[in-house]
Order: sequence, then structure tokens, then C-alpha cells
Amino acid sequence: MITVALAKGALLKDSVARFTKAGLDFSAILDPKNRLLMVPSVCGRAKALLVRNGDVPVYVAYGQAQLGVVGFDVLSEKKMPVANLLDLGFGGCRMAVAVKESSGYKSAVDLPHHCRVASKFTNCARRFFEDIDLPVELVHLTGSVELGPLTGIAEAIVDLVATGQTLRENGLVEIDELFYSTARLVGHPLSLRLDNGMLQKIIETMQSQNNSAHI
Amino acid sequence: MITVALAKGALLKDSVARFTKAGLDFSAILDPKNRLLMVPSVCGRAKALLVRNGDVPVYVAYGQAQLGVVGFDVLSEKKMPVANLLDLGFGGCRMAVAVKESSGYKSAVDLPHHCRVASKFTNCARRFFEDIDLPVELVHLTGSVELGPLTGIAEAIVDLVATGQTLRENGLVEIDELFYSTARLVGHPLSLRLDNGMLQKIIETMQSQNNSAHI
Repeated sequence: MITVALAKGALLKDSVARFTKAGLDFSAILDPKNRLLMVPSVCGRAKALLVRNGDVPVYVAYGQAQLGVVGFDVLSEKKMPVANLLDLGFGGCRMAVAVKESSGYKSAVDLPHHCRVASKFTNCARRFFEDIDLPVELVHLTGSVELGPLTGIAEAIVDLVATGQTLRENGLVEIDELFYSTARLVGHPLSLRLDNGMLQKIIETMQSQNNSAHI
Repeated sequence: MITVALAKGALLKDSVARFTKAGLDFSAILDPKNRLLMVPSVCGRAKALLVRNGDVPVYVAYGQAQLGVVGFDVLSEKKMPVANLLDLGFGGCRMAVAVKESSGYKSAVDLPHHCRVASKFTNCARRFFEDIDLPVELVHLTGSVELGPLTGIAEAIVDLVATGQTLRENGLVEIDELFYSTARLVGHPLSLRLDNGMLQKIIETMQSQNNSAHI
């Protein structure tokens, strides 16, 4: 039995569509009436675990799911021992540094030393500021990071930006980009080594969908 | 201007009611159409920040809010330098250890050494298992912790239990209690020391509501 960890939220619909094309139909998960967190595939050969974004790499790292779909942002933040198998292309957004428009800062290197930076992604932010040799004090927030500069708890934030609407609504502007994030297919390394071909077939089908989408 | 950090979710309605009785009316925050994360009080002397549970002690510790309301569970997990001023009594729930009913374990000390325990509250869980001298491997999950024993990622979980319905629905039973959690009024220590009487008046009014509720 194959177990697949899928993230609730923005990536779910496309994740289900890609697995359906690869032969594992979990579309029951998209039914608004669905309350189950473990959903069997139509074929009965697999089940999907519906978990929070940040928990996908945990379930895959511990081998409770052999495959999973999760954003590169979460993978970068959690650094769990999972195999990053495929860039699935959807769920695109930028991990960016943003400040108040009125601050005048044009780039992350303009920020004052030891200023405070708020983020849900403090590991990503720490690596970025270390790379540009700018010592900052990180403030870990779990939501509504755009409040950071408005309340004064931080001069800058590191957050995911898709359309930029939230930033604009809060008078913030993007001044630097850490990386571009998309949904990734990840796998449990040991399960991949012990695979009898079933996992490989799913991965290859998804890979070929990727290739045909790029033509 | 007084700033108060309020947690979104289950504690919000009672938090707003208690501040209204103490003279700061933030009831606009409860309007389902409200999209603002910073809401002024009717009197104009204060504003409320509407943030995630876990961010309340952060805003208060940094002094961006002088007062805040948050569950004792979050305070215990985050251990931020805030003053725990009052037990407000509402939002009661137990931080508990739970296992599969079929496991047969009757108490936390029955769990096997080095078993895996899943929790959103890994700091609370670590202290509890250290106190009972039981070495365990903690697995940090961010949601749906009740899936832990069902998927096999953990034998036990440490999670908040209010009615126990989620546990029952997932075939889990509570075998130990870490502590009982209720909403707390917290304050920024330096703001309390520099207070000209305004904060003290709010705290005393809330204290007297507490006392009259207990008669």
C-alpha cells in the first residue's frame, strides 16, 4: 500500500490532479463534505494523508508516507531528510524581503545592522542574511507577518509573495528575493531504494507529464 | 495609546467581552465582515492587534502590545519573557497524553522507552517526559496531531483536549494530564513598570470581574 502525504490548502487541487493522472485517484479529498484525513484511492492500492503544509516532509522523512507534495518554501525551512524528486511547476510564489514603502530601503543590503526581521520562515531568513553578511535579529511569527513593519516589531519581513496584493494593501514593497518556490514531489529515501517499481512508475509518469507540459 | 494583542480563534469572543467590561470596547473585531488586523477601541484610547495564538506572547514580549490574552498552553510552550498577570478562567482545556485505545497503556509511565510522541507542544512534552524520567523521541507536527498514532508515526501524542470528541472519533484515549490550561492576561514587564496607572486600572478591573465571577 502506497501512502501519499498531501498538503491542505493552495496546493491540494493541483496535487490531486497530478496523482490522478499518474493512476492514483484521490479526488474524494476535494469533496467539500469530506472530513476524513486519510482517504483511500479509487483503485484501493493507495491512501492519501491530508496534513498541514509543514507536516508533509515530517510524514515522508519518517517513512509514514512514501511520497508527498509540498512547496519548496517548506522544504527549505524544515530541512528534513527527504528526496526532492520533481519540480511539479504549480504553486509558484516568491520568498521575498519586504519593507514599508515609506522606509526608502531599495535592497536587503540597505537594511541597518541588527535590525529586526519578522518571518514564519526564520531558517530561510537566517541563511539569506548570513549569505549577505548582514547581522539581523529574527522574530518568529506564525501568521500575518505583514503586521510586522506596521506594528513596529520589525523593520523588514521575509514572507511568501504570490500576487503581491497583501503587501500593497499594507503599504509594503518587495526589495529582495530569496528564491522562487514551486510544489515539489518528495520521497522517503529508504522506500525509494526498496521500491519494487511501483513508486518509480508514479514518479516517471509525473515526470513525463512535466515534460509534455513544457513542450 | 494602549495596544492589546488578542488571539484569533476560540478565545477571541471572551477576550473582547472582558476588555469591554474593563472599558476598552473592541467589539468591532467580532463583526464577521471585519478584515482589519488592527482595530481601534470605541473610546479611541487603545487599539487591538488580532494575531495568531502563538504570536500574542511575541508581541507582548517585544512591547509592541502592553497587554495580551493567550492560553496558558501557548505561554508554557513559548516561554517568552511576559508577565502572567491574571487567570481569566475561560478557554479551559487539558494538555494531555493520549494513545490508541487498543494499545492498552493506562498511564504515561507505561509507554516504552524511546517511543515516539507527536505534538504541536514539543517543549511542554519534553519537560513532562523529563520530569517522569522517560526518554522519548519527540516528533513536531503542526496540525491534526490525532493522526499520529493512526499513521504509526508516533505511539502517543501530547495535545490539547477540550471535550475529548476528536480523541474518541479517532479511537484514542487520554492516559495522563500535563496541566489544565485557561486564558491568561499577560503584560509587557517594562510597560508595567513605567505605567502611569492606565494599565493598572484595566488589570484591577479585570481582577475584580474575576472575583465577582467566583462568588
